[in-house]
Amino acid sequence: MKQVPLQHFLNTQDWTRAELDAVLALAAQYKAQPLGPRALEGKSIALVFFNSSLRTRTSFEIGAFQLGGHAVVLQPGKDAWPIEFDLGTVMDGEAEEHIAEVARVLSRYVDLIGVRAFPKFVDWSTDREDRVLKGFAKYSSVPVINMETITHPCQELAHILALQEHFGTRDLRGKKYVLTWTYHPKPLNTAVANSALTIATRMGMDVTLLCPTPEYVLDERYMGWAEQNVAESGGSLQVSHDIESAYRGADVVYAKSWGALPYFGNWAPEKPIRDAHKHFIVDEAKMALTNDGVFSHCLPLRRNVKATDAVMDSPRCIAIDEAENRLHVQKAVMASLIGQRR
Amino acid sequence: MKQVPLQHFLNTQDWTRAELDAVLALAAQYKAQPLGPRALEGKSIALVFFNSSLRTRTSFEIGAFQLGGHAVVLQPGKDAWPIEFDLGTVMDGEAEEHIAEVARVLSRYVDLIGVRAFPKFVDWSTDREDRVLKGFAKYSSVPVINMETITHPCQELAHILALQEHFGTRDLRGKKYVLTWTYHPKPLNTAVANSALTIATRMGMDVTLLCPTPEYVLDERYMGWAEQNVAESGGSLQVSHDIESAYRGADVVYAKSWGALPYFGNWAPEKPIRDAHKHFIVDEAKMALTNDGVFSHCLPLRRNVKATDAVMDSPRCIAIDEAENRLHVQKAVMASLIGQRR
Amino acid sequence: MKQVPLQHFLNTQDWTRAELDAVLALAAQYKAQPLGPRALEGKSIALVFFNSSLRTRTSFEIGAFQLGGHAVVLQPGKDAWPIEFDLGTVMDGEAEEHIAEVARVLSRYVDLIGVRAFPKFVDWSTDREDRVLKGFAKYSSVPVINMETITHPCQELAHILALQEHFGTRDLRGKKYVLTWTYHPKPLNTAVANSALTIATRMGMDVTLLCPTPEYVLDERYMGWAEQNVAESGGSLQVSHDIESAYRGADVVYAKSWGALPYFGNWAPEKPIRDAHKHFIVDEAKMALTNDGVFSHCLPLRRNVKATDAVMDSPRCIAIDEAENRLHVQKAVMASLIGQRR
Repeated sequence: MKQVPLQHFLNTQDWTRAELDAVLALAAQYKAQPLGPRALEGKSIALVFFNSSLRTRTSFEIGAFQLGGHAVVLQPGKDAWPIEFDLGTVMDGEAEEHIAEVARVLSRYVDLIGVRAFPKFVDWSTDREDRVLKGFAKYSSVPVINMETITHPCQELAHILALQEHFGTRDLRGKKYVLTWTYHPKPLNTAVANSALTIATRMGMDVTLLCPTPEYVLDERYMGWAEQNVAESGGSLQVSHDIESAYRGADVVYAKSWGALPYFGNWAPEKPIRDAHKHFIVDEAKMALTNDGVFSHCLPLRRNVKATDAVMDSPRCIAIDEAENRLHVQKAVMASLIGQRR
Repeated sequence: MKQVPLQHFLNTQDWTRAELDAVLALAAQYKAQPLGPRALEGKSIALVFFNSSLRTRTSFEIGAFQLGGHAVVLQPGKDAWPIEFDLGTVMDGEAEEHIAEVARVLSRYVDLIGVRAFPKFVDWSTDREDRVLKGFAKYSSVPVINMETITHPCQELAHILALQEHFGTRDLRGKKYVLTWTYHPKPLNTAVANSALTIATRMGMDVTLLCPTPEYVLDERYMGWAEQNVAESGGSLQVSHDIESAYRGADVVYAKSWGALPYFGNWAPEKPIRDAHKHFIVDEAKMALTNDGVFSHCLPLRRNVKATDAVMDSPRCIAIDEAENRLHVQKAVMASLIGQRR
Repeated sequence: MKQVPLQHFLNTQDWTRAELDAVLALAAQYKAQPLGPRALEGKSIALVFFNSSLRTRTSFEIGAFQLGGHAVVLQPGKDAWPIEFDLGTVMDGEAEEHIAEVARVLSRYVDLIGVRAFPKFVDWSTDREDRVLKGFAKYSSVPVINMETITHPCQELAHILALQEHFGTRDLRGKKYVLTWTYHPKPLNTAVANSALTIATRMGMDVTLLCPTPEYVLDERYMGWAEQNVAESGGSLQVSHDIESAYRGADVVYAKSWGALPYFGNWAPEKPIRDAHKHFIVDEAKMALTNDGVFSHCLPLRRNVKATDAVMDSPRCIAIDEAENRLHVQKAVMASLIGQRR
């Protein structure tokens, strides 16, 4: 078995801009012709869900089918498949199986592996290691796709494709892009926020991260990627806690709720801060400040909590288009990765 | 997107008799030739189960496969996917998602949506609104199929096809049809009873609803449909609490247990009534009163509680044929609905 | 419906040696050409899991797909689908359905039925009857495949194919084969041990069953099969409690943990015996005693409990190949059984 490096799809940041552009172009092609090139004819993908899913599962499963392939959906339970990730451990605890065997065996059955594994929300310093995804990538002999862990690169591509469609151009440079925190009763995963920041700067947009307090700024890894992207793509990045100036003149408003990292695993003191910022809801008054801006969100979305009915049902809301695009971009990702085996 | 009305399959009562006859004829064709017209080639259906299922799931999934399509099975949990159905609600409770987004996004991925959502058995006045099914039908841009909610139209078609096969004729007028309540330790859904009453009268049979007491008469909506069907199809409808006269001369005995609506959500006082009518079991003595009648049931069935072993294992029992027909009629329903999109 | 006997795949012991050789040869063919003869084109299999599974499910599901067919995965819950198996019972307890109806209806939808049903670990005299598997085999009108109950014949074939590949010959006679018990914190199913003993003797190898005490000897049914196989195939069988002499000169070391049958359902007194034999772990020192022996295990495996990292990561470990072979042998079994219907 040759030990050539596999190309996985763990983060957009690992791919060149040309590779990302190519996959977006292929996605647009699949959108126009859903039963186009059957790149997975006779091939298969294992979708491993450590956290449950409806949209991700449906879009991957239908996507594989439309490409002539087959998706096997494995749901080892919410958090209930104890796997060992370290080498050398005496496995006399809960774990019945080592990631080395899990990934190696799956790789013998299928041609691609998708992994969804959310943080456990206890200790960010552990969660930020993204061990489940990286464990699969290390031991698998076929390409691994991130179906959302601490980032959500498939959502990134779907989001960008929807913006390209909306603006009628592949070049998004010069657009003012606001990623706004919104209220949700629970502290949620930062994955989509990390991803939005990453891809918006990558595309060269002028990005504002709008959040209640400095504690809601994202992990330094993603802030760093964003800065690096700005340097390379020629956009800009700023953090703001002022709603009005952030929205003013925006071309894109992308909303998401997430938990403040300093309170990770000890959420009680975060609650009053969170509760004091319910007014971050995306509503018509805020949208009126924008440059006839477009609104989107990754779904699911609590209406009249994160965004009002009026915003959601407006023709400027492209959240459903973005959700649809998951199907098309994931087909493009699968088609781009298929055929590698080490 | 044109706002043309979609044809769904929510209830047989929404379809013309000619449409029902056509779908039954197509089902017979698929039974003769299972890999016949591949009407779903490259198409897909989402099967959304709010309640679990083995038979319904298997028959739909195999049916889609035999038609060249693919079924995605979504099981949001027994009753555990809190979805908001009203517009204007501030979603700060349990619901993470609004039916508008759920149905719209699924519609972008698939070509048909099947929904199973049983009553919650707490408040019949709410359950009888059939909100989950109607919510999907309202917001979906593709046809929706009822996989059992408070009615079970797929079972109706399977049942009628089995009777047509048994009697060797598509014309069931003039047959004496008894829908008999039978004992079961728990109060069950009225869906199959509502459906049997609806379709038997629709087909012009002489229908007797046999049940322990007037409290077991079905909801006025379905009694009304039955009366309307009698007026149009020329059969008859009567309610009886007398086993002997109901069975005498019957051509068809269809058994089902259900809970008495006046006790909905407060079942304790219903139990003694239910327990006092264990003798409603379908046995050989009762079947001997019939006109060499045929017996069926929708399954699952508790042997020697709802019907005796002797009845179940008799050549006059067509319950297995009826169950098989689920596959054929559902293929016909999917083939009839496919291709619509608004 | 003709009452011809169906050929099922419940145990390798039910098949002739010629039949087993043919299925192994076909498996090797599928391994060389995964999209070879599409023996299940338009056909389907129901995979009924009373116990959950990832590897078995994936390998069967992908196998059916590669053969042109479709697998429906039914997971009635861990132990939660109460089915009645006796005739004549008044079903007024937990069971909602009789195996007669379950198997008959499934047989109308699909062309093959796979069943996984582990022992309940309360009463071996009941568990050893293998009632779930036998109930399906009795009432199904299509072939039934054992996906692991109290034996695991699919694993047997995968194991033998891996050995044939490793030794470069189909004839394994004369090889010294050690089935060794290893420590695991819980008392596990004897299925794979029963199966290993059965198939290793069937292939005419010189088999040693190495276990801590006489209480770990397997059920008399499987010891009896092994003796019968030795008589017919010309190998040998011995039971040993001495690690060194068992390993010395071995060509094959196959490890598995299982519970001692005399303690079935009353496991507390077994724990100290089990705990006293942690040194049965497969390590490099033991492997050094062998004739450059090959190591395997059915997976999942607790590293450094059942076998050390060094053994698992050695080129003499063929556990991943054996796991891969599940796919190929199961395709061969499905292809061999398909087309029968009574």
